[in-house]
Amino acid sequence: MPRDLTFTLDALRAAYAGGLRPEAVVEEAFARLDALNDPGIFLHQARAGALAEARALGSPDGRPLWGIPYAVKDNIDVAGMPTTAACPGFVHLAGADAFVVARLRALGAICLGKTNLDQFATGLVGVRTPYPVPRNAIDPALVPGGSSSGSAVAVARGLVAFSLGTDTAGSGRVPAAFNDIVGLKPSLGALSSAGMVPACRTLDTVSLFAQSVAEAWELFALTAGFDAADPWSRRMPAPPTPRLAPLPLPAATVAVPDEASLRTFGDTAQASHFRATVERLHASGARIREIDLAPFYAVAELLYAGPWVAERVAAVGARLTEAPETLHATTRAILAPGLKFSAVDAFKGLYRLEELRRSCAQALQGANLLCVPTIPCFVTLEEVAADPFGPNSRLGTYTNFVNLLDMCGIAVPTGPRPDGRPGSLTVLARRGEDARAAALALWVERGGAAASAAVGPTESEIAEDEIAESEIAAVEIAEDEIALAVCGAHMSGLPLNGELTSRGGRFLRAGHTGPNYRLHALDGGPPARPGLVRVSEGRGGPIAVEIWALPRTAFGDFLAGIPSPLTIGTVELENGSTVKGFLCEPHGLRGGRDITALGGWRAALAEG
Amino acid sequence: MPRDLTFTLDALRAAYAGGLRPEAVVEEAFARLDALNDPGIFLHQARAGALAEARALGSPDGRPLWGIPYAVKDNIDVAGMPTTAACPGFVHLAGADAFVVARLRALGAICLGKTNLDQFATGLVGVRTPYPVPRNAIDPALVPGGSSSGSAVAVARGLVAFSLGTDTAGSGRVPAAFNDIVGLKPSLGALSSAGMVPACRTLDTVSLFAQSVAEAWELFALTAGFDAADPWSRRMPAPPTPRLAPLPLPAATVAVPDEASLRTFGDTAQASHFRATVERLHASGARIREIDLAPFYAVAELLYAGPWVAERVAAVGARLTEAPETLHATTRAILAPGLKFSAVDAFKGLYRLEELRRSCAQALQGANLLCVPTIPCFVTLEEVAADPFGPNSRLGTYTNFVNLLDMCGIAVPTGPRPDGRPGSLTVLARRGEDARAAALALWVERGGAAASAAVGPTESEIAEDEIAESEIAAVEIAEDEIALAVCGAHMSGLPLNGELTSRGGRFLRAGHTGPNYRLHALDGGPPARPGLVRVSEGRGGPIAVEIWALPRTAFGDFLAGIPSPLTIGTVELENGSTVKGFLCEPHGLRGGRDITALGGWRAALAEG
Repeated sequence: MPRDLTFTLDALRAAYAGGLRPEAVVEEAFARLDALNDPGIFLHQARAGALAEARALGSPDGRPLWGIPYAVKDNIDVAGMPTTAACPGFVHLAGADAFVVARLRALGAICLGKTNLDQFATGLVGVRTPYPVPRNAIDPALVPGGSSSGSAVAVARGLVAFSLGTDTAGSGRVPAAFNDIVGLKPSLGALSSAGMVPACRTLDTVSLFAQSVAEAWELFALTAGFDAADPWSRRMPAPPTPRLAPLPLPAATVAVPDEASLRTFGDTAQASHFRATVERLHASGARIREIDLAPFYAVAELLYAGPWVAERVAAVGARLTEAPETLHATTRAILAPGLKFSAVDAFKGLYRLEELRRSCAQALQGANLLCVPTIPCFVTLEEVAADPFGPNSRLGTYTNFVNLLDMCGIAVPTGPRPDGRPGSLTVLARRGEDARAAALALWVERGGAAASAAVGPTESEIAEDEIAESEIAAVEIAEDEIALAVCGAHMSGLPLNGELTSRGGRFLRAGHTGPNYRLHALDGGPPARPGLVRVSEGRGGPIAVEIWALPRTAFGDFLAGIPSPLTIGTVELENGSTVKGFLCEPHGLRGGRDITALGGWRAALAEG
Repeated sequence: MPRDLTFTLDALRAAYAGGLRPEAVVEEAFARLDALNDPGIFLHQARAGALAEARALGSPDGRPLWGIPYAVKDNIDVAGMPTTAACPGFVHLAGADAFVVARLRALGAICLGKTNLDQFATGLVGVRTPYPVPRNAIDPALVPGGSSSGSAVAVARGLVAFSLGTDTAGSGRVPAAFNDIVGLKPSLGALSSAGMVPACRTLDTVSLFAQSVAEAWELFALTAGFDAADPWSRRMPAPPTPRLAPLPLPAATVAVPDEASLRTFGDTAQASHFRATVERLHASGARIREIDLAPFYAVAELLYAGPWVAERVAAVGARLTEAPETLHATTRAILAPGLKFSAVDAFKGLYRLEELRRSCAQALQGANLLCVPTIPCFVTLEEVAADPFGPNSRLGTYTNFVNLLDMCGIAVPTGPRPDGRPGSLTVLARRGEDARAAALALWVERGGAAASAAVGPTESEIAEDEIAESEIAAVEIAEDEIALAVCGAHMSGLPLNGELTSRGGRFLRAGHTGPNYRLHALDGGPPARPGLVRVSEGRGGPIAVEIWALPRTAFGDFLAGIPSPLTIGTVELENGSTVKGFLCEPHGLRGGRDITALGGWRAALAEG
């Protein structure tokens, strides 16, 4: 019996490889749930069904989520289970899986049941439910956080390896912070919302909770995809990549709230913990830009004080006017003002948002990421009992503006504060830059550059899996990108790197060419530039390169600026695969210096 | 006195080069207006001011619109002139130029005055104004078309070289069709709307009327640009190019309404004229795809039957409820229902639009252009007098859906129908693809491939200008294209030429490299391929190449398919200029054959 088995993708896969049966995992999951004695986590438990599914899985078949147990927020359909949105009067038996659930099923994952939430996903505390409130996994005096309360607690308690939440105003991030886990809030439209009960349809997304950034990212990569049946589904600029490398810090320009606009409502530990995390980023090479968050806060206010409340009314339907008693009292109080807004108000709200979007874009100019505390402060059950509205509103400080601004983000634990409460940072990025946000979150999770190297694959692991290294470039590159090997001034931190990053280039990895190349320091400059040339077998050596991904549509523009004698051709890598890369015309080598022996351009620069 | 001078950019520039004064042109313009005796065209005439501006211009100074007279629709601000939006009660004296007007002023253009419109740009007939109605320039029994009635008539009557309109539902296209001129409706956000009285702010754009596609395009290229002060301004993917080449027809896949969904309300001449234009496109090599326009019509209905009417109410403000008598009776009747829509209705409208957008996108899959008749039928003054609403609605058949779907378009004359009424085609494209739409319109305007060749430079003109040959690549290449020298299987008629043409590549010219290149027939194939290498001075010869223009955004995709040992680098041409071009890595020459002496790949192929 795997009593001490941690339910993560990695641990479960290893255990399954060792012969463990999924039935035993399902039984253990429910045994853990029983032992917890927390009736608020699940609104529906699929004990028999999950066990039957586990049995039916047969032998491991290579599917990436074979036998992985997970939970689904109860505003997302799972075929054959009831969907309530935490409103008993709303209940319906789902005839089909939501798009994302269907994907997970096809990948071999086992749904253990449906989890509690703030009714109709309206709330950030997790207590606006007619059912028992799930207990916070860290401290029972705290609210569990919402609206995806049950899904977050289920992961934090080790009942499931991951769970689905939803996120409109922060429901996929706030409970991650309250329960010390990772919450990934994708770009709107990256995950299909088909089969999800809407909150604000223009702002909704399915979200993911997991124990680590890498696993959250892998799950995102496995479930993301265009869904022609969902009008809100969007083709993303780069399909997500299953393997994530920590963002090289020099590639990050991180905006953070300045002193005056950092809001923690008196929670000084939250402020100092956040500043310490930012300081760590800075010390490790990230450029930090302090900005005034005022326009972001103005956007956040639109969500509940403006006509967007009418979207929630549209989602709840006639219930608000015809059967208001079937709604939670707090939910009803929040929705009611939505009835008063006119269409003129709605359009004026859109105008105001458009103006504020421009202000926010200007504030973010030059930065490719925005880091904020996931929550400004903690909230206790007692505080919410005394005031059901105020503490909830405060929790949306750093989340409410995100979907209105079409940003993506990921909440990542940053270790305990001095009082033991969990620290959490949210890394935000522009739409479609989910990978960049996750790559920085990975860095943060691993505690910095040194730690990140330590958790990378060990040499023996690399040796064990010969193809792993060789496939990284092939695996990580998206269809609308082109992988490019750079060997000179375009590498991270060097003078021409901006020609890549300004065109949406993404760092994929560092590596080497195959063995038959020579590198020359070219005559001329600045900037000083090397030239790479392929030579006969045995006449060269491997040369250090960086592999970058450049959007396909931006490649021509990049290429147009490359001067003679440099060219773009095909470069063989250390693993025998090939990518596009910089080469040099032979006639351009005259007057230069052969630096092949140094192994790469950075070594040549260090040598001076 | 230039009585017979046509007011086009080209003719005016030529006349100015010959010594004509802008004052004379301004005087002539007003003399023509007086002769017309049509008090409905201009709501404000800037006779003295325009004359003073003309005098102040001094000598020609190279500015592209030096001395060019134009008119501005009276819902766009011109500093020092009143803006009425055809509502006398709304009048205000503009303190500053609208963004586009300021640009035109800086470029040397002279504004002759403000033109009539359907009040608050609400209408497509041009008669919903408390001022005299401008007379249709072709047939006084017809409405002038609206809402930009005065601006279109001013151009059609030859009073100005161009004019500004606005377009929300078709106001920049319908009057172009009624008056036999070109109407360019840019992608939303391409021209700043700062200084324009809004109609539906989310759907408004400034538009351009001109005598020809080339001139409309040049004006668009001169006035487009990002405006940080306008929240609706957007950075467009490719900056517009001042010179436009007709779209090569094989690069066009044109969707057109199928038989069942072509609506002409009984105007059979309109249907057959449209079909004849499409047939001409087809016969010249364009791929034609007949589609069902039903989802587009469903989008169109949202504009006046849905909550978007509330946007018009938001634009008119308190006037509708507090001073309704200051509004035109028809305008008032159209706006009033907008007061009844709730914010819930507004969001539901947005949801419906999102669903329909998906359907329309699916209908357009595989097509890069959509061609429709600009108007389904003609409308007379008498018909509108009898029914102020119905005929107006019909005119929006092919225009109402365009801005809701974020498309761009251009209306272009297609010659007279058998009854003498002007034919007009609108070429529509996806947002940001304004150049593609205009390039097809240019082809249409010139009446097909044969005619288009006829309007190119004659042989004697080429001979006259010795540098022409050498500079064609530099001159003809557009900003959003990259010139590429090909020396092998990518040349016209050879096996890989389709890799260029299928990506929108255009043949520019045949030529030669500079003197220091060698060409090798490479080992391997098929297809057989040569490799070009630059060598030391005196060691090579000129090699025959073709210069092609490839869209910048398609270049990466092209490059991704180029196999080792070929690369893309910089190639020097016979005239000393450089372009991107195919080169070959030296290690790839082994096993091949030096064919430099043959002078080029075609010679090698002929030799066998």
